[in-house]
Amino acid sequence: MSIEIISEQRCFGGTQGFYRHTSSATGGAMKFGVFTPPLAPGAKAPVLYYLAGLTCSEETFAIKAGAQRVAAELGIALVTPDTSPRDTGIDGATGDWEFGEGAGFYLDATTPAFAPRFRMYGYVVDELPALLATQFPALDTTRASIFGHSMGGHGALTIALKNPGRYRSVSAFAPIVAPIQAPWGQKAFPRYLGDDRDAWRAYDATALIEDGVHFAGTLLVDQGDTDKFLATQLRPEYLERACRANGQALELRLRAGYDHSYWFIQSFIEDHLRHHAGALA
Amino acid sequence: MSIEIISEQRCFGGTQGFYRHTSSATGGAMKFGVFTPPLAPGAKAPVLYYLAGLTCSEETFAIKAGAQRVAAELGIALVTPDTSPRDTGIDGATGDWEFGEGAGFYLDATTPAFAPRFRMYGYVVDELPALLATQFPALDTTRASIFGHSMGGHGALTIALKNPGRYRSVSAFAPIVAPIQAPWGQKAFPRYLGDDRDAWRAYDATALIEDGVHFAGTLLVDQGDTDKFLATQLRPEYLERACRANGQALELRLRAGYDHSYWFIQSFIEDHLRHHAGALA
Repeated sequence: MSIEIISEQRCFGGTQGFYRHTSSATGGAMKFGVFTPPLAPGAKAPVLYYLAGLTCSEETFAIKAGAQRVAAELGIALVTPDTSPRDTGIDGATGDWEFGEGAGFYLDATTPAFAPRFRMYGYVVDELPALLATQFPALDTTRASIFGHSMGGHGALTIALKNPGRYRSVSAFAPIVAPIQAPWGQKAFPRYLGDDRDAWRAYDATALIEDGVHFAGTLLVDQGDTDKFLATQLRPEYLERACRANGQALELRLRAGYDHSYWFIQSFIEDHLRHHAGALA
Repeated sequence: MSIEIISEQRCFGGTQGFYRHTSSATGGAMKFGVFTPPLAPGAKAPVLYYLAGLTCSEETFAIKAGAQRVAAELGIALVTPDTSPRDTGIDGATGDWEFGEGAGFYLDATTPAFAPRFRMYGYVVDELPALLATQFPALDTTRASIFGHSMGGHGALTIALKNPGRYRSVSAFAPIVAPIQAPWGQKAFPRYLGDDRDAWRAYDATALIEDGVHFAGTLLVDQGDTDKFLATQLRPEYLERACRANGQALELRLRAGYDHSYWFIQSFIEDHLRHHAGALA
């Protein structure tokens, strides 16, 4: 395993870097970002993974969320994978912002067309952490948490639920909590996973909790109440109901006047980072 | 005077907006951003103008600098004009990132080709503040400060120097302090201002100070020491020498390991905002 450095730049006393490597999970080149905080000699930083939403890339959160300041103070590394493989050449994988490239949904596709490349679940859960463990000696990948936004909030919640003990904390901004019941999921899941709706439940946070999966900690969710996707795609009440019925701790905060953008995320990023820092300490 | 709202979004309890209007100074449509902090009923926010660098727009600082958090806390409005008129149709005004559209240099052009549109000095100093005063009742435009980056640092320094009493404080990140002596200025100034080098001195911070202009306060400048433009284009030692020879207060801080980017700017933005807040109180 080796990586290519795209750029490394000083930021808040640490380093914001972007990297490229050949991924076996997704069968091609993948890019990701790492913010490494300033560290005492010999110290290592725990890792907070951030999964971005539809149309975003490994750069979006790093540029728009204003997270490095707090991560530097707390001594946390921020790792931002891309949202899908790129340049796949697969028929139908480009041209629609809700599906395909830029819209990997953090699952391992099983349909013949998409299974060879669209395996962002395995990439985020296994391949990327293993790569970081060997290539970034300043990171302590055994201490990890995960969060994300929208499609990436869906990714963070499902990945944390499906891998008990792997992530110490999980949070989300405006997540897709029940893709099976949302137009975005109903469009993407058949093409990635086929028509068997039972198979979709493994990638739906609400369904996982309904099916008895439990996260040993509180799910922290912030949601803007003027988010234009709230009533159609996001529907946090589905998650709330499943958590209540199944004893899963959830802190869901509606934020008055905020929308779906990074103006919203940056307004509450510090709160999420401090939540994760508490779990990662 | 009227403006069109492009977007207004909640951010840190205030509002990040982008606007379009027809500018008489530049003879066409101009865009700008305003971050209005949360305010007590009836209160008004002082205005901090930010001038961006080559290739940037009214969005760049708003998206990349992480300034809204501190501006919200301090109760300061952030105003970000574009860096030039756009869609001018002037021969030679596009296709070169160092000149023309995106590279207005905050001057009033006098050459026949560029004088009708490239008048960013008058736009920033007179037209935009007058527009804000009539259209944004939450802003107190009588309390104003100014800062900027690179070409915009040049703009902030020259505009503050040339308008005594107008700006309570001025600062810059990696400014072009002596465009007359820099390749960027030597390329742009003849085409905007003609070949009479004496006319160039009115748009050169170092020359203005050498010619006896004084700012009633400290010029605050941060400069990364690994900035790739430092030795060729920026040359803060020219400003330092002129300030020392002419009794102008200057605080110039070299920042080890930082480059010319917004990763650098965001690392020190809080410091600049607190500097301006002190003057604007």
